[in-house]
Amino acid sequence: MSKTIVYKQKVEFGDCDPARIVWFPNYFRWIDAASRNFFVQCGVPPWHETEKTLGVLGTPIVDTHARFINTASYGDVLDIHVTITEWRTKSFVTQYQIRRGGDLIMECDEVRIFAAHRAAVGDPQPGIRAVPIPPSIRSLCE
Amino acid sequence: MSKTIVYKQKVEFGDCDPARIVWFPNYFRWIDAASRNFFVQCGVPPWHETEKTLGVLGTPIVDTHARFINTASYGDVLDIHVTITEWRTKSFVTQYQIRRGGDLIMECDEVRIFAAHRAAVGDPQPGIRAVPIPPSIRSLCE
Amino acid sequence: MSKTIVYKQKVEFGDCDPARIVWFPNYFRWIDAASRNFFVQCGVPPWHETEKTLGVLGTPIVDTHARFINTASYGDVLDIHVTITEWRTKSFVTQYQIRRGGDLIMECDEVRIFAAHRAAVGDPQPGIRAVPIPPSIRSLCE
Amino acid sequence: MSKTIVYKQKVEFGDCDPARIVWFPNYFRWIDAASRNFFVQCGVPPWHETEKTLGVLGTPIVDTHARFINTASYGDVLDIHVTITEWRTKSFVTQYQIRRGGDLIMECDEVRIFAAHRAAVGDPQPGIRAVPIPPSIRSLCE
Repeated sequence: MSKTIVYKQKVEFGDCDPARIVWFPNYFRWIDAASRNFFVQCGVPPWHETEKTLGVLGTPIVDTHARFINTASYGDVLDIHVTITEWRTKSFVTQYQIRRGGDLIMECDEVRIFAAHRAAVGDPQPGIRAVPIPPSIRSLCE
Repeated sequence: MSKTIVYKQKVEFGDCDPARIVWFPNYFRWIDAASRNFFVQCGVPPWHETEKTLGVLGTPIVDTHARFINTASYGDVLDIHVTITEWRTKSFVTQYQIRRGGDLIMECDEVRIFAAHRAAVGDPQPGIRAVPIPPSIRSLCE
Repeated sequence: MSKTIVYKQKVEFGDCDPARIVWFPNYFRWIDAASRNFFVQCGVPPWHETEKTLGVLGTPIVDTHARFINTASYGDVLDIHVTITEWRTKSFVTQYQIRRGGDLIMECDEVRIFAAHRAAVGDPQPGIRAVPIPPSIRSLCE
Repeated sequence: MSKTIVYKQKVEFGDCDPARIVWFPNYFRWIDAASRNFFVQCGVPPWHETEKTLGVLGTPIVDTHARFINTASYGDVLDIHVTITEWRTKSFVTQYQIRRGGDLIMECDEVRIFAAHRAAVGDPQPGIRAVPIPPSIRSLCE
């Protein structure tokens, strides 16, 4: 069984659009916050510390796939359930389920990497590169 | 050949995060603007008019899948290439390619519906329901 | 003594800019949420109810004056202290103090009105107009 | 006569709130972009260059005072007129007028400083300090 950490998010008036529902880019703002909160709650040190100890700067996103199932509006309190569902060699998959009580609002599968400063030339992303999953971080999050 | 409409977006300082790159939820803000711009440029009347003529309120998102290929930062000017790649019975697929000159920054496939006010009970999304693609809109966008 | 209601706000990575501090427009997002929270905590019914009972649609902003005293960054937890410091005939002044523990981060004085649908021609703001402060709302907030 | 630089901003659906008007924090997002654009258009080098030549990192905000005169909504194209109206010893005042055609939507007076890394202890803002206005920058902007 993988760890699941829940991040609470209240929907405010300004998060909603003229259709009176959450404007969808805001779900990704909250998912990014829930992703960081997951590592913090699992006991992973802040990235400015892991930069010194492991060379790890953070976890940039490389792929996301989201399904919008129900709408939410202001006044709603959302629970964002976060689990890492797969560990690959140099990336990992996080699943998010955004719920309002028993209703599933949005579901998202996201691939991120652990990034370090780029040492060599020819890397795909300018400035950073993916590093193998640090075992010390993985063991805290499983 | 499907129509492709390009939406230009300048990246501002405030669109970037402490890693000095575009914070990824901002790509979805721009994609939403590029989606509306596509219909406007194709000659589709504003939704407040189609609401009266066709009952169509807008095009809510139901699914999105994005790949983040390169990073962008402030000062960059991005071209968002928008094409509708598939017409289904009650939904359609839009492809977005965000480019900076020759570099592909982000790529996204998105499913949206044409929404009308919900008439009957038992519809999945509260308040709105998917309607069949209006042929008059489709012919303008192909 | 006026009522003071405190709204808590955690600063997330995406709220910060390439200078690694809160990008200032975000303070106004939080102030807007803290303003609504003030009325809710004071027991004022939601605006969709006051629209029916009092004709009041909400409290649009007409003037704001903010001083930025210290910077904040991600991981910080901010307390937004909210008080209505002045009741005028058709507007009211709210004072916000954003604190991190003992440090004052930002201070803001804001003028808002109670808005109703515009009945007569010649009103300054299209669609809405300021109405006299409803005594039932004022007595809950003092 | 001071220089005035105009920054164009289109209002998108997602910039508007459930009242169907621009959610006011967005005006500050656009003002921040218009402020940077002013310096660029005046020929001031990017801050990463002035950091090396003059020690100047950027222009953090210390005070803003805004008046909201008319509402705007999606589809509107706004012109943000930017002028530096006052040069003080260690700060400067910028005036913004946001117009839609002949209508004044919002007006804002803002105080910013030129910031350098803090050298000495006891400075008010952590990490940065105000430096005297660089004459080479002032002469480009007047």
